[in-house]
Amino acid sequence: MKNFIIRTLSGLAFTVLVIGSILYGPVAFAVVFGTIMTIAVSEYLNITVGKSNAGGNILLRALTIVASLSLFVNVFLVAAYGFDPLYILFAILPVLGIFISNLYVKGFNVHDIKEVDGVTVRTSNGYESHPFALGALVYVALPFSLMSIVLYDKTGVYDGNLLLCMMVMLWCTDVGAYLLGSTLGQMFGHRLFPSISPKKSWEGFFGGLVCSVAGAVVLRGVGLLELNLADAIAVGVIICIFGVLGDLVESQLKRNFGVKDSGKIMPGHGGMLDRFDGALLAFPVAIVYIIFFAA
Amino acid sequence: MKNFIIRTLSGLAFTVLVIGSILYGPVAFAVVFGTIMTIAVSEYLNITVGKSNAGGNILLRALTIVASLSLFVNVFLVAAYGFDPLYILFAILPVLGIFISNLYVKGFNVHDIKEVDGVTVRTSNGYESHPFALGALVYVALPFSLMSIVLYDKTGVYDGNLLLCMMVMLWCTDVGAYLLGSTLGQMFGHRLFPSISPKKSWEGFFGGLVCSVAGAVVLRGVGLLELNLADAIAVGVIICIFGVLGDLVESQLKRNFGVKDSGKIMPGHGGMLDRFDGALLAFPVAIVYIIFFAA
Repeated sequence: MKNFIIRTLSGLAFTVLVIGSILYGPVAFAVVFGTIMTIAVSEYLNITVGKSNAGGNILLRALTIVASLSLFVNVFLVAAYGFDPLYILFAILPVLGIFISNLYVKGFNVHDIKEVDGVTVRTSNGYESHPFALGALVYVALPFSLMSIVLYDKTGVYDGNLLLCMMVMLWCTDVGAYLLGSTLGQMFGHRLFPSISPKKSWEGFFGGLVCSVAGAVVLRGVGLLELNLADAIAVGVIICIFGVLGDLVESQLKRNFGVKDSGKIMPGHGGMLDRFDGALLAFPVAIVYIIFFAA
Repeated sequence: MKNFIIRTLSGLAFTVLVIGSILYGPVAFAVVFGTIMTIAVSEYLNITVGKSNAGGNILLRALTIVASLSLFVNVFLVAAYGFDPLYILFAILPVLGIFISNLYVKGFNVHDIKEVDGVTVRTSNGYESHPFALGALVYVALPFSLMSIVLYDKTGVYDGNLLLCMMVMLWCTDVGAYLLGSTLGQMFGHRLFPSISPKKSWEGFFGGLVCSVAGAVVLRGVGLLELNLADAIAVGVIICIFGVLGDLVESQLKRNFGVKDSGKIMPGHGGMLDRFDGALLAFPVAIVYIIFFAA
């Protein structure tokens, strides 16, 4: 019972913070989402590279966060204040710093291959860290940075409704998947992806699809989602399909590294990466659809 | 002797191809450099992920190349034909494909940690491949894609001279480093980075610096490099310092994976990654300097 209250309160606080920041305006959005991204990048590094600060991890972590924030802030400045898109190039400098700092990390140039139970493994723990820093940038920082792009309407006026609607559709997917997954999914049990997420069912997936599309139609009906009906439905479908895939991608990541939650920042909910796993894949696809294919 | 002739001829053919394509025009540039980038991306994957096609490597390789070309072509279209920079977003779709395809690769969800001689290693060969695909994009495809940005002068007219000058400065660095490294460097032997590149000396580095800056000044003198003197010298210094660092970064990569040459495409010269290792770090920094700090 106590857990339930904590879980509900922390979920509520988080939802208010996310929705509130988008509604409040661009600077609030940038501060809140920049912070969430930084936490999510840290969690990704905790999972992949480890929490230990041995082997240059402090420097790698610092440079990855600087690169992530540099990408986020520069894309935001381009979208919000009309900066030249070339400013995004500045994010390259800390990325190059990641490569260069690698040179100075002890043990990174150790090359050591062994056979373990017939499988070839490298026992150096050096070079494996460095691509995950790039992974954090592409997998976590890039999708968060792209959110800025949909914060302005065609006349250049701030309008957080579209991003808000995308969030709501993602939450609808979760709710629909839970409702049908825990009832029909339990009864019939057509499993979606047993090797990665044993509990997910096709019944839950279709529940999510129906809820996401219904959410899109309702949001459009009340005037929050300014797309025509076909586009609203398409975005609902995209958010559900790629949201579920994003969920699976993060589950695979955690399973691979033997981690249950990405972090502990939200009592009862795990980490920020767990909260945004669906968005990391769904939002970029939805944004590409909206920019290039929506009427 | 036969080797020397082959080496000279293949080096000459490569130089003619690179210089010729830049001088000929934007489409020739895009075809030649897009091809070189594709080869370099393949070589990076050969080194890091391996040449074997087991474990979903064909798909990973295909998606990485599609993502690289998508980035390259879209940045080129923005720079050369004035496309909206948002077109670069299309490169995200194959990147997401990399994450999603991962889900379907057998063994990727195997989580297996062992102790080997007191060092913790993972014996799954799955998840380690996937960040290197992102590494190929950031480390190889991004710098090649950025080259398009400096192909046009301020009035929007195609002018390959700046990129050509950057190439020449990089070659000057190599020549200067070789001349002083093989003479003074042999005599005094202040080693630059013994753990990664035992043969490099500080004497060679300063030889490269002098030659690169001298090259910049001469290129400016003959009217090919349209920068003021201070900026020309700054670009010469940047190209030398980051060119040497780029060389070290690639050496570390190869050393870590026990590889001598990145490939065999150029008889006597190794692979494309070996040819462009300096440019991968030097050109992005030079481009940022030229765009934001040159008068």
